[in-house]
Amino acid sequence: MEKGSASPRDLGHLFSKTAVNRKPSAIKQYYKFFAIPGVGNLAGGLPNSRFFPFETLEAQSAKPERWTPTPNYPDGEDDHLDATGNGSQPKAATHLTVPMASGEKDPVKKIDLETALQYGTGEGYPPLLSFVRQFSQRVLHPNVPHSAGVDVVMTCGSTDGFSKTLELFNNPWSEGDPISRKQGLLCEIFMYSNVLSQSQPRGMNIVPVEMDADGMLAHGTGGLEDVLENWDSSKGQRPHMLYTNGPQPNGRGAPVRRRKELYAICQKYDVIIVEDDPYWYLQYPSADRAEARSRQKPEPTTQVPPAPAKSSGYEFIDSLVPSFLSIDVDGRVVRLDTFSKTVAPGCRLGWITAQPAFIERYVRITETSTQQPSGFVQSMIAQLLLGHQTETVARFLSLGSKERQTFAGWSTDGWVRWLAGLRGSYERRMNRMCAIIDEYSYEPRVASKRPGLDSDWAYVRLHRHRCFGQQGKSRTIDGPLISAALMIYLTHAPYKVLVAPGSMFAANDDIRQTLAWSWFRICFAAEAEEKIDDCAHRFGTGVREFFKIKNPEDIEELYEEFEPRMLESPDAADAFSGLGC
Amino acid sequence: MEKGSASPRDLGHLFSKTAVNRKPSAIKQYYKFFAIPGVGNLAGGLPNSRFFPFETLEAQSAKPERWTPTPNYPDGEDDHLDATGNGSQPKAATHLTVPMASGEKDPVKKIDLETALQYGTGEGYPPLLSFVRQFSQRVLHPNVPHSAGVDVVMTCGSTDGFSKTLELFNNPWSEGDPISRKQGLLCEIFMYSNVLSQSQPRGMNIVPVEMDADGMLAHGTGGLEDVLENWDSSKGQRPHMLYTNGPQPNGRGAPVRRRKELYAICQKYDVIIVEDDPYWYLQYPSADRAEARSRQKPEPTTQVPPAPAKSSGYEFIDSLVPSFLSIDVDGRVVRLDTFSKTVAPGCRLGWITAQPAFIERYVRITETSTQQPSGFVQSMIAQLLLGHQTETVARFLSLGSKERQTFAGWSTDGWVRWLAGLRGSYERRMNRMCAIIDEYSYEPRVASKRPGLDSDWAYVRLHRHRCFGQQGKSRTIDGPLISAALMIYLTHAPYKVLVAPGSMFAANDDIRQTLAWSWFRICFAAEAEEKIDDCAHRFGTGVREFFKIKNPEDIEELYEEFEPRMLESPDAADAFSGLGC
Repeated sequence: MEKGSASPRDLGHLFSKTAVNRKPSAIKQYYKFFAIPGVGNLAGGLPNSRFFPFETLEAQSAKPERWTPTPNYPDGEDDHLDATGNGSQPKAATHLTVPMASGEKDPVKKIDLETALQYGTGEGYPPLLSFVRQFSQRVLHPNVPHSAGVDVVMTCGSTDGFSKTLELFNNPWSEGDPISRKQGLLCEIFMYSNVLSQSQPRGMNIVPVEMDADGMLAHGTGGLEDVLENWDSSKGQRPHMLYTNGPQPNGRGAPVRRRKELYAICQKYDVIIVEDDPYWYLQYPSADRAEARSRQKPEPTTQVPPAPAKSSGYEFIDSLVPSFLSIDVDGRVVRLDTFSKTVAPGCRLGWITAQPAFIERYVRITETSTQQPSGFVQSMIAQLLLGHQTETVARFLSLGSKERQTFAGWSTDGWVRWLAGLRGSYERRMNRMCAIIDEYSYEPRVASKRPGLDSDWAYVRLHRHRCFGQQGKSRTIDGPLISAALMIYLTHAPYKVLVAPGSMFAANDDIRQTLAWSWFRICFAAEAEEKIDDCAHRFGTGVREFFKIKNPEDIEELYEEFEPRMLESPDAADAFSGLGC
Repeated sequence: MEKGSASPRDLGHLFSKTAVNRKPSAIKQYYKFFAIPGVGNLAGGLPNSRFFPFETLEAQSAKPERWTPTPNYPDGEDDHLDATGNGSQPKAATHLTVPMASGEKDPVKKIDLETALQYGTGEGYPPLLSFVRQFSQRVLHPNVPHSAGVDVVMTCGSTDGFSKTLELFNNPWSEGDPISRKQGLLCEIFMYSNVLSQSQPRGMNIVPVEMDADGMLAHGTGGLEDVLENWDSSKGQRPHMLYTNGPQPNGRGAPVRRRKELYAICQKYDVIIVEDDPYWYLQYPSADRAEARSRQKPEPTTQVPPAPAKSSGYEFIDSLVPSFLSIDVDGRVVRLDTFSKTVAPGCRLGWITAQPAFIERYVRITETSTQQPSGFVQSMIAQLLLGHQTETVARFLSLGSKERQTFAGWSTDGWVRWLAGLRGSYERRMNRMCAIIDEYSYEPRVASKRPGLDSDWAYVRLHRHRCFGQQGKSRTIDGPLISAALMIYLTHAPYKVLVAPGSMFAANDDIRQTLAWSWFRICFAAEAEEKIDDCAHRFGTGVREFFKIKNPEDIEELYEEFEPRMLESPDAADAFSGLGC
């Protein structure tokens, strides 16, 4: 299509009734009065910053060069396949300070406590909002096809982002309401389970769509088109929301070709696409070659993706599979981003990217719920990215150390460098761990699936255990039981490793029973660098020993250490996902 | 009743359908596995803290003695009636540090980034949660009558708290749904308007209850009993939620006697009481005497409230009118607290206090929306209140300055001292400002209403302007028009003060037209100390001059500078309430 030629579609008919009812705030009508030079504010609401018990917020922060990136298009060399060289100066740090008053006039440059700790607007803290907006528009999504371009609103992380997305697009339904008003959520058969905990209590139909190695199926039996075309309205409304996130046990997320097929179907059936992609930066170009190498298979040739129509200005970003936003002609894509995986989960900070008409509604929803993320985290992240110590600050702090006076924010270059370094660090961990697991992959009947795309974990698939189908003390040994027994067995000495059963990522019980049990998720992000190898060996050894068990009753005994409902509960995955992103 | 003898009632029948559907998280079932000593975590979700770009969070923080308290039971002296003596050491500060790893084992004492910036649980950050819980149970509400005692959950501020309260107790309704399912919210005729912005889009009936000087009326025409007893079910369900907050233009909040009457009616009609009291600590015992003094009326005798059955341990807290929780036999009270007025609005941090069965549901709602407040603010407030620099920290920071090594958290004593100091500072501002306004109170036909209870603002009531009822260019000059015109007039030079029209606090348009217009809210919290007197004089002078205007058309012209819908929109108050608490 002709880039930027057409406006996004008005999709207000897909909003929830509550969201439609929200009136725009009248605040802006007052700005002109607050803005009168020298006007005395007796209207109130805003406490004087002199009453705040904090005069600065400060931090020891890393430099963006801390971690060493890996090549975007790996050559034949191996240096990026091991875990060495994790940053030339891992401990180098600098001291940043958010002062009480920065002396800056421009609100998008003014980073201080008299603004950050005051009431703010729903969009987010102006300096941080302006960074995130330009980063999203120019760097992450320079190729949005409609003319309006995307806008952003800050969130308290992606779980908050999805909660607000349900608020915007879903009318809750409960027993007794007309079935014709029951709405649904299309999703992959393996998914992030917290999304189920958010959607099911609202009475939504959860509608899994089949997958293959390229992600959600567009065509064919059980694919998206099939599900929508043959929708049985006795179950409720045909779903108008689709949730998709990173790679799943049997796949690695959808390449652009597949995304275009899925998008066309969403256009035909007027479906909103919610793209939740916390691991987007963790795409591992070396995965295929490393896998081939550790399994003595012929090496695939490095595939350099086609250059984007408009470059982000960064080779690293250009090398990543682009968001659904890059093909979003209609403006029907909502993207959820988070700082949880790139700064820290405890930030509770992220943002939503979508067409401006959606963002306007998100701001209304935010004003009447979270209002804005905490000024503590917004100002610290803003200072990390944009900050510089002005004369005012130096005077205010009467600084002794040279370091403080010379603090400079990372800027966009530094932020991209940090992301590339994180990717490098995770990629090396992943390759090392998977290579070790592969050493066990014949005897123990496990094979690691390297995530080619988006993740801080890999999946391992189990072959069939000899006890499968045999009779135990009181029951027949089936897949889910073996899966639970193995998880328990691995926590015993001498193995002592905790892994996540695939059943936790199943969209429903049927998938849990038939498919999911044979997968385990192995995370290489949580443990300290130096423990990765040892943990991988303990895992491999544990699996090997488990497969030597001959007596079905021993399997059953292990299973009984476990509360069965655990595996059936979608919430169970929360323990592993850490309640998500 | 016999204290603590009876359990709270099971009020689950008042929960929303969505809230009832929420399943308890299965996380806890996994704790035993995560807790295995030396277990390697390959289950993931929790990134290694080495990847966080922050190694410390630090701050220059105030000492609790910064502000000078006022007497809880004022004697005849005047020293607390002026604004002098605002703290013996206003600038004294100390440096606090949240380290990467504190070395502490006890999770309720462990305050560091490896916990605060990691995923957490919905209740809140353990050290802060434990402080807030014991502070609520032992200091704020030591006299809860039911046996379960109250529990707490952290929120992202009181607007988030009320949003979650609607989620817990209200089923959204919209055109086309059976009217029998439309739910309602009982409230005072003057209220915090953001609550309307939150409730109305959900299709709730907003049901104002008449007030007198003691707050919401229990009995008599338009009182709570009358409204509930004679509820017209053709408008929807009889409301099962009551919202109440601080003082209103024509009153000062409800004393205990009135609260008991209201509570008994809520028991009879099975109504949940939501008490939103951000200004609770700002009760001004000197208000009556100061008012009498500045109006040359006989001074009332100081009234010392009856001592609570069980003391908080602090004279200041014991002197405050207790929460509805102190008479909550059934466990039907939900109290919203916030750090917005006691630390800073930008914290986006507060908590909900209620019976444990309610808190359990709030935690489910939190896990699937905000997850928890930001670890940045939770750890900084925890360190401010509880922190102490351990050897570990000192080594980690290789501290130079003695100050850092000797940092000690405020503890409960320090926190209460801070609150008492804030109250003192606000009380002096209030008395000074009201005394000045009283100087204008005959000629300009204004009289200030001193808030005896809970606020950082006072109300001013206008007498009738000579143009009232006269014909202007195109319309008759009515109250709302005069009110708007005066607000505009006051923003003109030389007066240049911005005040909040009472119409913004009206629960509906009828109240806005008939009652609210004659009130103005004057805030003494926002302006710098030294500007309070000048602003109050400018206000008084401006009002006096406005009342000299003879030509109705001049009033109408002023009105036209204003967008009329502004005054009709409940959201308008957001600009003044700063989007609330």
